[in-house]
Amino acid sequence: MSPWDVHASIATYLTFEDISHAAATLDTQQYATPVLKLVSEARAKGYDVICLPLTTDKWKQRWAEMCVQLQDDSERERDTVAERRAEEWRARPAFLKDEVTITRLDEAEGITAMISEWLELDAADDWVRHDAEIALRQEIAYASYLNIQTVILPAPRSRFHVASYARIISACLETTTFLNLSVRLPIYNPSVLRQESPVPTASQSSLIEPASASDVPMILLPSNTTQNLSSAPEGELNATWEMWDVIRSMCGYDTRLSLTLDLTPPLPTTLGVLSKWTAESVRHIYIPASTFIANTKGYPVLPKPTQTFIRNSMIASLSSPTIILSDVVSGLHNRGGEAAYSQYVRHLEKTSLAVQASQKPGTVENFAQGYQDYLQAPLQPLMDNLQSLTYQTFEQDPIKYTQYEEAIFKALLEWQPTSERIICCVAGAGRGPLVARCLSAITRAKRDVFIYAVEKNPNAFVTLQERQEKEWGDSVKILFGDMRYIDIPEQADILISELLGSFGDNELSPECLDGAMRFLKPTGVSIPSSYTAHLAPLSSSKLYNEARSSKDGKSLETPYVVMFQAVNILSGDGGGLRGQCGPQIQECWEFEHPRRDIVLDLRGLPLTNTHNVRAAHLNFYIPHAGVLHGLAGYFEAVLYGNIGLSIHPHRKDRISKDMLSWFPLFFPFKETLYLPSNSELRVSIWRLTNERHVWYEWHAESFLTMPTSSIAPTSPTLMGYRYSPSPSSSGLFSPSAPSPLIDAAEPVFKFPEPRASTSSIETVGVAYDVVKIGHTSLHNPGGRSSWIGL
Amino acid sequence: MSPWDVHASIATYLTFEDISHAAATLDTQQYATPVLKLVSEARAKGYDVICLPLTTDKWKQRWAEMCVQLQDDSERERDTVAERRAEEWRARPAFLKDEVTITRLDEAEGITAMISEWLELDAADDWVRHDAEIALRQEIAYASYLNIQTVILPAPRSRFHVASYARIISACLETTTFLNLSVRLPIYNPSVLRQESPVPTASQSSLIEPASASDVPMILLPSNTTQNLSSAPEGELNATWEMWDVIRSMCGYDTRLSLTLDLTPPLPTTLGVLSKWTAESVRHIYIPASTFIANTKGYPVLPKPTQTFIRNSMIASLSSPTIILSDVVSGLHNRGGEAAYSQYVRHLEKTSLAVQASQKPGTVENFAQGYQDYLQAPLQPLMDNLQSLTYQTFEQDPIKYTQYEEAIFKALLEWQPTSERIICCVAGAGRGPLVARCLSAITRAKRDVFIYAVEKNPNAFVTLQERQEKEWGDSVKILFGDMRYIDIPEQADILISELLGSFGDNELSPECLDGAMRFLKPTGVSIPSSYTAHLAPLSSSKLYNEARSSKDGKSLETPYVVMFQAVNILSGDGGGLRGQCGPQIQECWEFEHPRRDIVLDLRGLPLTNTHNVRAAHLNFYIPHAGVLHGLAGYFEAVLYGNIGLSIHPHRKDRISKDMLSWFPLFFPFKETLYLPSNSELRVSIWRLTNERHVWYEWHAESFLTMPTSSIAPTSPTLMGYRYSPSPSSSGLFSPSAPSPLIDAAEPVFKFPEPRASTSSIETVGVAYDVVKIGHTSLHNPGGRSSWIGL
Repeated sequence: MSPWDVHASIATYLTFEDISHAAATLDTQQYATPVLKLVSEARAKGYDVICLPLTTDKWKQRWAEMCVQLQDDSERERDTVAERRAEEWRARPAFLKDEVTITRLDEAEGITAMISEWLELDAADDWVRHDAEIALRQEIAYASYLNIQTVILPAPRSRFHVASYARIISACLETTTFLNLSVRLPIYNPSVLRQESPVPTASQSSLIEPASASDVPMILLPSNTTQNLSSAPEGELNATWEMWDVIRSMCGYDTRLSLTLDLTPPLPTTLGVLSKWTAESVRHIYIPASTFIANTKGYPVLPKPTQTFIRNSMIASLSSPTIILSDVVSGLHNRGGEAAYSQYVRHLEKTSLAVQASQKPGTVENFAQGYQDYLQAPLQPLMDNLQSLTYQTFEQDPIKYTQYEEAIFKALLEWQPTSERIICCVAGAGRGPLVARCLSAITRAKRDVFIYAVEKNPNAFVTLQERQEKEWGDSVKILFGDMRYIDIPEQADILISELLGSFGDNELSPECLDGAMRFLKPTGVSIPSSYTAHLAPLSSSKLYNEARSSKDGKSLETPYVVMFQAVNILSGDGGGLRGQCGPQIQECWEFEHPRRDIVLDLRGLPLTNTHNVRAAHLNFYIPHAGVLHGLAGYFEAVLYGNIGLSIHPHRKDRISKDMLSWFPLFFPFKETLYLPSNSELRVSIWRLTNERHVWYEWHAESFLTMPTSSIAPTSPTLMGYRYSPSPSSSGLFSPSAPSPLIDAAEPVFKFPEPRASTSSIETVGVAYDVVKIGHTSLHNPGGRSSWIGL
Repeated sequence: MSPWDVHASIATYLTFEDISHAAATLDTQQYATPVLKLVSEARAKGYDVICLPLTTDKWKQRWAEMCVQLQDDSERERDTVAERRAEEWRARPAFLKDEVTITRLDEAEGITAMISEWLELDAADDWVRHDAEIALRQEIAYASYLNIQTVILPAPRSRFHVASYARIISACLETTTFLNLSVRLPIYNPSVLRQESPVPTASQSSLIEPASASDVPMILLPSNTTQNLSSAPEGELNATWEMWDVIRSMCGYDTRLSLTLDLTPPLPTTLGVLSKWTAESVRHIYIPASTFIANTKGYPVLPKPTQTFIRNSMIASLSSPTIILSDVVSGLHNRGGEAAYSQYVRHLEKTSLAVQASQKPGTVENFAQGYQDYLQAPLQPLMDNLQSLTYQTFEQDPIKYTQYEEAIFKALLEWQPTSERIICCVAGAGRGPLVARCLSAITRAKRDVFIYAVEKNPNAFVTLQERQEKEWGDSVKILFGDMRYIDIPEQADILISELLGSFGDNELSPECLDGAMRFLKPTGVSIPSSYTAHLAPLSSSKLYNEARSSKDGKSLETPYVVMFQAVNILSGDGGGLRGQCGPQIQECWEFEHPRRDIVLDLRGLPLTNTHNVRAAHLNFYIPHAGVLHGLAGYFEAVLYGNIGLSIHPHRKDRISKDMLSWFPLFFPFKETLYLPSNSELRVSIWRLTNERHVWYEWHAESFLTMPTSSIAPTSPTLMGYRYSPSPSSSGLFSPSAPSPLIDAAEPVFKFPEPRASTSSIETVGVAYDVVKIGHTSLHNPGGRSSWIGL
């Protein structure tokens, strides 16, 4: 497989009218049925997938006659004939032949079927909902009979009754085994809705007076409304996502459940609200011709926000959503004909940044093809001896070793010699890449240097022996042993190591270098000289499901190495309402080398590992509602001076662009945590150790902060803590000076101040109530499932 | 076991001073050690349990010298000797002999040990916390060595750092196997704290200047402050509970983790805030002599709120908390001496309503002894044939059958005869109790009545044959068969059944009576004539743990019958801020009999069970923060006229006081849901059916409602939905008329109104923002694990 050749599938949506038309003009010599003709023609036009409504208007008519009209009659005057018909149907639901569009296996092959869109699974009326469920199950059973793989479900319409919708979908997932269900969902802007006259509910509306076959209502909204949308309140913009969240949560994140985003209504211009869709399982994007506008030449193009959204959705992998084009034969635009629409979509795909990056050799996106959202257990190079192949993969990094060479070069230039020659020691030489870079730097710096190369992997040590013999000669002495216990003939001026993991310290660089400090001169330097770990709260249905599906029950206790793709970082910059939150991605802690203040035993090794224990308590601002599934972990290292390595998303391009060696770390949460818009998330993470292992534990609590309302009811029990913005005063419940381990300002939760200081808040004019709203359990308690062996 | 003989244990707390005193006066002929002397004396005084500090002040001194003082020095000027000592201790933590109070197994027998109270597991300083953890583990390991069963942990002190405290406790639970850990927690009123000068933090305080042995600080607060406490804001009153919630949640609700409530500080008078402790695992209540006040005669008594709290905690079962009395030898009160304190506690126990009720024969509390919080699978009398013993248990109900007789009597009196004699039919006669009551009613009513008695249990039918022969004779005809299929010789005027479960319809009364309607005359009546199901949101660590611990992985999908004890109903009356919530306990749905509007087949049976499907969507107001663990289910039935049966907590005493036959139903949630003070909970529950089964599914979403703040930032993305209080206008997203199934007013979540109606809100003066803050997943999807067989 050559994953970057994969392109997004494009589908055409055929209507019942298309089928009628095909039937009228059918040459039965050529095609057995109208659907076969349409499918064949669509494939000839280059469409990858064909979408088709599963049922005809006859079905809608019968259903409405049975299930809706009698709701209008009073209890006592029921049409008993209709009610008997309905009960007979409920007892044994079945279609009549002309109520369905397809009847043959060959017609259904490769078809994505649209379930009857008029089924109101979330109707306010209990009985309409009940009968819509029976109809849905009937349609799904019929689709399964025809071996259809994917059906698109009618859009949920009621935030109030969405739990009923979700329960019904969950039941359908329970009773089917292979069928994929995709929930159609317009990313509409509800402010558009306000322009409309009240939309009639099912029991009074189109269901009673069935529209003609060509008039199946495709969407809930008119597509030609294009006012400025950015003014819609957050809650409204989030409403559709909230409905989706309820549905997929109630369906237990079933992997057969996906989304069909309906772009019929104009998109909001607030893209922050849209980014959350990247963390969801979007399988189709539905775009009718009416969503296209004409460019100056008359060709169909999409409005700017829609363009951006489509481009961002294109990810150059098999999980790119299928684009469903509808109504493209109607000639809505002057130029280009039907082909113009799919050509334009292909153009958007080609100009997608993700697709472009993935096609450019040397980029992480290109390197990572096939690894997106794939969970890998972090390497444990201290406990396990790596394979030669693993070394080879990482030695290919075009940036990392260049940075190391520069750092060594600079260190050599700036070195104040204490003896005639400089001693370098490569601690953990592996197959020798750092030794080679060290030699290059020495040549460039024109210094007299001797290199010791220490390696504990007996297999890699064979490679080192070979390279010394063939390449390095007398300028390098290789030593076999663990840097924590080996004896080195002389102390080094410069200690060079590459022991960093995705989270910096997670491959036990601190512990290994503690051991190597024995053979570093008191004035010596370490490359790297320091490194930091960074975190951000993450939403990703995909990763949550991946972590859950691992065999081991403990799989949600372990951090994973993963190349993020279908993820959304939930935090934002900006400090939150109280101004107490840190940036989007926050630093947890730092390790520095050499560290000289440690109590050592007679061998020169630390008495305990206490000094490598860390704790961080970070406050994140959550601007847009989302579901917390885990934490993204990154590292940044200072090699020497201003030369570093970074996978921090905001800084990596400035520090070590196109470096490939590290994907981020993903710390999963077992329980999802719902975070409202404008909330705050307090994340605690600990790096812990016993005599034999190192591990992390993590936990999160969520809070809502709001200005104390001046129109609040007089009840004294209204809210939770009252926060005072004055940072100075101390007390039992306020943390004392910020921890030296944490550079971000530590947020201050505390209990009310004495009166004097309360009034000082009033002069400021704004006070805040902080209400706890949720938490996760402690993750990885005791660390057993992810012990990193010392 | 005769459970109502159980009384609460009383413990005495011995101090290090007591031990020193005993040592000074020890007769080594009589006692081997001072501790043995003290224990022996305490037992002689009638104490059930002895509490003792585990460590002496020498230990506190050494720990502080090693771990605290050096924190005050600057990084570079560390006392390297102290640091080496500390590192050596950290590497191999161990006590010196005189650092502990007990050394022998016989001393430790039956002792509850107090862990060093000065350990700040939630210190703001990372290193103080770290070394406190090592000390805690050392003490716990020593207690385990001595086979001590329970230790009491120092109180958490910092809401901000409580996650660190919780992580440490979780680690201790991981590394011990039998030891019970009890977290000491003062239910303090933080407003008292404000009166105090800032309490110094550990690193500057008593740890550096160790107090004398008699001066071990027992509490965080002065005990003599007694101002009016009801004015403290909700958040402050909740703060200690919130800390406990974080701790037990992070410890995964470990059953070895419990609470020691410290009543040293005066209790708040807002008892609503205190009721939440009943849902927690309280193992000890600590009361120092100083909490007692003197009554007019000089004897020690407790202040009113404390009295009430202790009485409510006494539950006449083995799970009653142990009362720990301390400082009772100091003579703080003039009269009664040491014995007066425990005598007073016994007095409170005797006057506890729960204890009194449990000792009174004929009450549910007495009947239910041993069944409190014990989960039972609901009976399935339709699918299973009950044992004679089961019938006998339920036939003992003193109220239920009296109510039935009254209902039948009244029905007979009011019956307008259509023929010479009245036909009664007992559908589901069991061993015949309703037949007997029917005969009594007939005698009293002096009517000409013939009784048919139908029973499908072949075993019970033998008993019926015997009773007919010996007791009833010709006035009763017994028929063997299922009421849904059997043929009855003539139609009945009055159909009498007792098919109700704890939730009304959960033993399939609706389905059975549907079948029996065939032999009820068109004008006939059913006893019961209707029944309703009721729900309330519940918090209970005990029930949550019990439901989780059942073998079956699906155990959290099934409702249970359970006699509630350690539970707290989270909802309150009052409607919530928006006035949209129902009462504390809300009605879900109703079933009425006979129902004549059902489509029947040729046999007279319903074509489908559709008409017995139900759905309810209830909005609860949550006044005080709590954790949702499940739903409490109740029923109420109208037998005839104003005669009924009820287990609805607010109405049962008026309708059918002392009825024993039904405990409530408990619908568990798999995931706990944190509900802040003043939030709203929307519960959905469905009664579902297929051809062969009936089951329930349930789900909950939580919301915070707050008045729209006039001082909110100008950002349009501040909050979630904006709620308009005007109930009239309709639209796509507002539910239409309330469902006929739900009698509570249906709350109205909706999207913003058009401008015109927005301004109408402004004239009202208060608008509300409703922010979703959490949800549970769908429970019991597909129902498999709790199918009730038809």
